[in-house]
Amino acid sequence: MTIALDGFGAEQGFDVLAEGARRAAADGIGVRVFGPERSLGLSGVEGVEVIPTTEWIGNEDDPVHSVRERKEASVVRAAADVAEGNAQAMVSLGSTGATMAAATFGLRRLKGVQRPALAVPIPSPKKPVLFLDVGANVEVRPQHLVQFAFLGAAFSAAVMEVREPTVGLLTVGEEAGKGRPEIVEAHRILKDSPGLDFVGNIEGGDLPAAKVDVVVTDGFTGNVALKVMEGAAKELAGAISEVAHQNPIAAVGGMLLKPSLGGLRKKFDPDTTGGAILLGLRAVTIVGHGSSGPDGVANAVRMAARSVRVDAVGRTAALLREGGAGRAALADEGTAEPAGGPA
Amino acid sequence: MTIALDGFGAEQGFDVLAEGARRAAADGIGVRVFGPERSLGLSGVEGVEVIPTTEWIGNEDDPVHSVRERKEASVVRAAADVAEGNAQAMVSLGSTGATMAAATFGLRRLKGVQRPALAVPIPSPKKPVLFLDVGANVEVRPQHLVQFAFLGAAFSAAVMEVREPTVGLLTVGEEAGKGRPEIVEAHRILKDSPGLDFVGNIEGGDLPAAKVDVVVTDGFTGNVALKVMEGAAKELAGAISEVAHQNPIAAVGGMLLKPSLGGLRKKFDPDTTGGAILLGLRAVTIVGHGSSGPDGVANAVRMAARSVRVDAVGRTAALLREGGAGRAALADEGTAEPAGGPA
Repeated sequence: MTIALDGFGAEQGFDVLAEGARRAAADGIGVRVFGPERSLGLSGVEGVEVIPTTEWIGNEDDPVHSVRERKEASVVRAAADVAEGNAQAMVSLGSTGATMAAATFGLRRLKGVQRPALAVPIPSPKKPVLFLDVGANVEVRPQHLVQFAFLGAAFSAAVMEVREPTVGLLTVGEEAGKGRPEIVEAHRILKDSPGLDFVGNIEGGDLPAAKVDVVVTDGFTGNVALKVMEGAAKELAGAISEVAHQNPIAAVGGMLLKPSLGGLRKKFDPDTTGGAILLGLRAVTIVGHGSSGPDGVANAVRMAARSVRVDAVGRTAALLREGGAGRAALADEGTAEPAGGPA
Repeated sequence: MTIALDGFGAEQGFDVLAEGARRAAADGIGVRVFGPERSLGLSGVEGVEVIPTTEWIGNEDDPVHSVRERKEASVVRAAADVAEGNAQAMVSLGSTGATMAAATFGLRRLKGVQRPALAVPIPSPKKPVLFLDVGANVEVRPQHLVQFAFLGAAFSAAVMEVREPTVGLLTVGEEAGKGRPEIVEAHRILKDSPGLDFVGNIEGGDLPAAKVDVVVTDGFTGNVALKVMEGAAKELAGAISEVAHQNPIAAVGGMLLKPSLGGLRKKFDPDTTGGAILLGLRAVTIVGHGSSGPDGVANAVRMAARSVRVDAVGRTAALLREGGAGRAALADEGTAEPAGGPA
């Protein structure tokens, strides 16, 4: 098992990225890092190989153009490494757009998939919810949302081991007509799709409440919603910790409660999940948090390794093939604009 | 001071709505309730007058069509009551779409305002943030987002007493080119708008972190983001309370901490704020939470009364007139598509 790791893009610096690679390698995962050899300081570390790379693509660069032009960029080389069979999956903490472009061009899409989607398991207190798309596609057409529903359900069943996952479409009201036009149309297609347990529209509050197993939205709404949720959890935790310093009684209470809260804090720590997974490609690609600490980097690599181990791609592809409706929705661009009126 | 209150739409029933009206009236606010006389049971309550109304518009009805056709519906009559001068502001806990349509048709827009926006003060731990649009306009053009920025800044300054409020545009990255096309275009106009402290793009996490005083977005994204945030706070509070029941030490800690947490809980309780305010109209309209308890109803009426007392509409209109750029952006549809290229 070998994972290709983009050596650039860690906001906390090369040391943190290198330490993450070290920790993942200590678990027996081979790591091939594409980055600056000297800054990473990983020479001689067992299980880690640095492939010297000095070029990289940043958040300010146009993703598609940069990936096409700069073949020596770390994220492009990591994707090529997987395509050549030197590694089984890739991980990047850098620009989401560049990672998506490099993976889409370098690793290719599963048969029939028009747009890969970025999915993230949300650590809801009740049960994990797979949320997609959280940033790969800022604008979508109805058939893309339909594809995300099938991709998400297949991944949830294959990798998260949810039997017959329920799927909800995120919008501004439960009624079928609520939301942007592409959502109304996607709802119409999904409700008649066999092979999918589509429960209908859900609202923002249903995401943290884990009302369904898979929540489908476009990459703009998903990115904003994910960051709002992470931010709210962080601010609330901070406010509670502040309250626990307001007076001695509260302080004692906070001290007694703290050990039990540790598990909850860990559950909500972005470093725990490791990152998001790009669904719909022929190899696993993990987009880690730019702000990751060493554990976040290591967990992103571990997430990639685990996904390879359970054959996430193969099982997702098989489930997509099995579902007749899924296949139809995936293969036929025209499905989204049928000749008939609303059902 | 008299407020027109829609007597339908309270999910917890007529008793809860009636009790809210009673509590607001006890503060010396006159309340005219449009609803079923017998179910409300408010006869003889000082300061409360029930105007018998049996027709209403629900979430499943088409808002614009229903408001046009059903002149006897409670929310339409409440708006007419304000237009006729019997009340100074209106409050509804019912369908947001119907309330907006009734208010827009019945109360009319401020000069130059194309689309009213629904704004809500977010109870961030750090400072209140005005967030708009949270549901009035599912689809927007660039100039609508520009108008929301000016409306929000004016309300923040006039009513929330923020000196020179900072304004941010909610999207998926800090760089100017990030987001849907209408956001990129709105950013371009806003950054050259004098009379507005536009700080640029902000991301989802900046909303709960209160990075700016006014956060601007479309009504779809705003509605989803608001409900995600409220839901996350609720789920996290529930998870913490569950942890405090896991073992005796944690339970004692929870007990000691509880009194201090009360203030925080109250701050985040949707009933505390009372609701959202529709900006851009010639009279105050408050959209309360459908799920409000008696305090939520009373606080929605109090919010309406307070907004009238500080002359929210007059001061917002004056601030809009003063800001030359604001006036230009508001008055001229063409401002959004100037002849020149990007600056």
